[in-house]
Amino acid sequence: MTTASQPNSATFNLLCSHAREVALLRSTQSLLEWDERTKLPPAGGEYRAEQVSYLAGLIHRRQTEPIVGEYLHQLLEGPLATDRHSDTGAVIHNLKRDYDQKTKLPQSLVEELARTSVLGQQVWAQARKANDFSQFQPLLQRTIELKQQEAAALGFDDVPYDALLDQFEPGAKTAEVRQVLVELREQLVPLVAAIVDGGRRPNMDILRRHYPTATQEKFGLQVATAIGFDFNAGRLDVTHHPFCSTSGPCDVRLTTHYYEDFFPSALFSILHEAGHGLYEQGLRADQVGLPTGEAVSLGVHESQSRLWENLVGRSQAFWQHFYPQLQQSFGEALSDVPLEDFYFAINDVRPSLIRIEADEATYNLHIMVRFELEQALLMDELRVADLPGAWHEKYQQYLGVRSPTDADGVMQDVHWSAGLVGYFPTYTLGNIYASQLFERAEQELGDFATMFRRGDFRPLRDWLRIHVHEPGRRYAPSQLVQRVTGEGISHEPLMRHLRHKFGLLYGLV
Amino acid sequence: MTTASQPNSATFNLLCSHAREVALLRSTQSLLEWDERTKLPPAGGEYRAEQVSYLAGLIHRRQTEPIVGEYLHQLLEGPLATDRHSDTGAVIHNLKRDYDQKTKLPQSLVEELARTSVLGQQVWAQARKANDFSQFQPLLQRTIELKQQEAAALGFDDVPYDALLDQFEPGAKTAEVRQVLVELREQLVPLVAAIVDGGRRPNMDILRRHYPTATQEKFGLQVATAIGFDFNAGRLDVTHHPFCSTSGPCDVRLTTHYYEDFFPSALFSILHEAGHGLYEQGLRADQVGLPTGEAVSLGVHESQSRLWENLVGRSQAFWQHFYPQLQQSFGEALSDVPLEDFYFAINDVRPSLIRIEADEATYNLHIMVRFELEQALLMDELRVADLPGAWHEKYQQYLGVRSPTDADGVMQDVHWSAGLVGYFPTYTLGNIYASQLFERAEQELGDFATMFRRGDFRPLRDWLRIHVHEPGRRYAPSQLVQRVTGEGISHEPLMRHLRHKFGLLYGLV
Repeated sequence: MTTASQPNSATFNLLCSHAREVALLRSTQSLLEWDERTKLPPAGGEYRAEQVSYLAGLIHRRQTEPIVGEYLHQLLEGPLATDRHSDTGAVIHNLKRDYDQKTKLPQSLVEELARTSVLGQQVWAQARKANDFSQFQPLLQRTIELKQQEAAALGFDDVPYDALLDQFEPGAKTAEVRQVLVELREQLVPLVAAIVDGGRRPNMDILRRHYPTATQEKFGLQVATAIGFDFNAGRLDVTHHPFCSTSGPCDVRLTTHYYEDFFPSALFSILHEAGHGLYEQGLRADQVGLPTGEAVSLGVHESQSRLWENLVGRSQAFWQHFYPQLQQSFGEALSDVPLEDFYFAINDVRPSLIRIEADEATYNLHIMVRFELEQALLMDELRVADLPGAWHEKYQQYLGVRSPTDADGVMQDVHWSAGLVGYFPTYTLGNIYASQLFERAEQELGDFATMFRRGDFRPLRDWLRIHVHEPGRRYAPSQLVQRVTGEGISHEPLMRHLRHKFGLLYGLV
Repeated sequence: MTTASQPNSATFNLLCSHAREVALLRSTQSLLEWDERTKLPPAGGEYRAEQVSYLAGLIHRRQTEPIVGEYLHQLLEGPLATDRHSDTGAVIHNLKRDYDQKTKLPQSLVEELARTSVLGQQVWAQARKANDFSQFQPLLQRTIELKQQEAAALGFDDVPYDALLDQFEPGAKTAEVRQVLVELREQLVPLVAAIVDGGRRPNMDILRRHYPTATQEKFGLQVATAIGFDFNAGRLDVTHHPFCSTSGPCDVRLTTHYYEDFFPSALFSILHEAGHGLYEQGLRADQVGLPTGEAVSLGVHESQSRLWENLVGRSQAFWQHFYPQLQQSFGEALSDVPLEDFYFAINDVRPSLIRIEADEATYNLHIMVRFELEQALLMDELRVADLPGAWHEKYQQYLGVRSPTDADGVMQDVHWSAGLVGYFPTYTLGNIYASQLFERAEQELGDFATMFRRGDFRPLRDWLRIHVHEPGRRYAPSQLVQRVTGEGISHEPLMRHLRHKFGLLYGLV
């Protein structure tokens, strides 16, 4: 260590201590939110909102303390920041990014965004229940205006959408993402059409027999453990909408919901959330509370959940391993069902109205609709009043379906009401990254089908841990993908996967 | 409102806002602790300790902010403080009390107390496991010295024990408590001896049959609901040591533990914790976060739990109502058991070694031992090295039993290792208050046995709500009892209850 770096290193330690203190508060807030969704007594909601909002204010005040700016100013010119992909450099540059994002927004805008988000969700819920878009329209209008102001305050090179997207997918550019998604769409639409036109259909009734909750839970725990989720440092609980939440480095919590008359829902949610959970459990323990110990983006997070849910969990090899156990667990429902019928049923492709119920292939078309519409709104190329019509048009165009209601149409998702604009494309980016990473991992590790058939998921999990989880935020998402796969973001591996899998299932090859 | 009171009222609002913010943090800390004991994954303990201790520091810093002292200084001379039992006066005087207690202790002492408490519990657990008091002795020695320093810093009129007792039972004086407890002991010892000498014994085997956990839980929820606990604003979970915890005004959480081969444990824990829970649920909603919306003392809290557990839950009339349902729920275990045998078995009086397993009558003798020994330690009238011997002597004298080990003797409780000196007498004060309040309530409301036999607990619960819960901290515990019963603290109602109940059961009348 040179003498010049001495003071720098002391400042770096102060910066890290500060970040770790904020992380203690953030993880506490995360527990409050997990508890709210899983355990909180019905009457406890109002005070819980006060606790969460007080903690959010505390966290924001600490994150924007001028001393952080001073530490960063001092460190950015110093040797610890030179390599932005080193442990120290990644901490400094990412904290700088976070600090700038937090301090660029005027306090009044932060507060109005928060208020509009809370109010927006309430109004959305009512409007959705009443199937009356006009009730929601003024709030959505205001939300779009505020997001335009937010984008302006954050700044952008090309389009305002860049600034919003960047909050969820650091470094991603609208133009690049659009290109990848359009290419994907152009190939997906004919694939889905071919599947529909082909006329083959799995027998879905076998999934709607009686599947007792307790057995589903036991099987879900077993599968999550098999793919490597550590229940010594995690839990599984029940909620309405499945999610994964982290309250500490050894405290990662999955949730799911059980339907006794529909098997896939709970299990694939568990696999999906366990994929998120494996990412969290794979972060470096020695970097807790620092950007080097944090997930890099929503897209990369989703890549992990989709990879385990779809590329692993809906693969034939996976069920060649697990199906005998499944049949044993649910003898009544499955004893007369051949593996092939089960495998086909859990891979049913069918254009539908609701995003969160969509299959692996059509899912991304639901995202395209939202991605294109929210950009148009932000650019004032589409009026909020015209949104329901535009929604129907795009659904007709990409999926060939039309929702009879706005409730199950333009108002089906909570995101826009909560001010989450620029969030949707990260779902498809997740699918795209997942296929890119999976393909690359298989090139390095050898045939996955062989491994999965014998229940060996360890090589894949370890590979993801080393290449995706442990880097934390040291590389931007696209850099990470480039580094690991040697290629930029590309729709091709995903399309190869979908064409191969559904080509076989639907007899298109 | 006079013009003079205007600034006072503004200051009062600032003081209340401050207290309410601290309450948001304290209730959050409470949730972290509840979660730690009920849900936290095994590996999550270390980080949880960091979260809790960070929050504790934050709370302490906020509680001791000089601005609070300034608000209080300004308000104490003003009209809002004149009546210390009014809503405003109670807030001001209690916050003054809390502020003084927090600020009187030098930071170095606070930190050493905290360290010694954590270390003490670890060393105690090991020493207890090894049944080796000498391992624990130096830590206990240091704890007593620190408690002496703490008492000196807090200040006291008569004896140092006053200062420590006052932290748990505000306003209680050692001399007064001692007098009541000695009178109780002098009457209890011969009563217990008479029961033992009488030779009657219930058949305890009937409680050790097979009681399935799920049925126990269902029955426990039903009973807690029947006595008025609101599960819309509360929960019941499983832990090792039952407790009641409050994370918000409408979020009161009970815990219990189930033994399939011993019925009373879970149910009476549920009744006990629900008694605590009813107190918390009975606090005034409009005073959340203020002393007027807080429980007044450990003793009064314990009076509520003991009242529902023992005076209600172990009464004959209670089981005249519930026993048919119980027999129906646990047909296999209880179909051949008459109510009288069941009632006798759950009221077995037997001198034993372990406090937390003791019955309604002998329990208070366990407390006497600890109350007398901890005073002697604090006054340097007993050396820590001589504590195990003194323990045996007193157990022989009051209960006629001698523990074969120190593990189940002087090291059976966690309290001293955690620095909780002055805490034990609140358990017996709870029993004493419970009987005083219960007797008074019955004078006002009419025969409880008649009500309980028809499952009507509402009049008692409402009476406690009005007279005990809703006052919050407006009166010191002894003032509260005086106000409600018209009498000072007295052992007589408790002795009347015990003599009557056990006189009938053991044929002493």
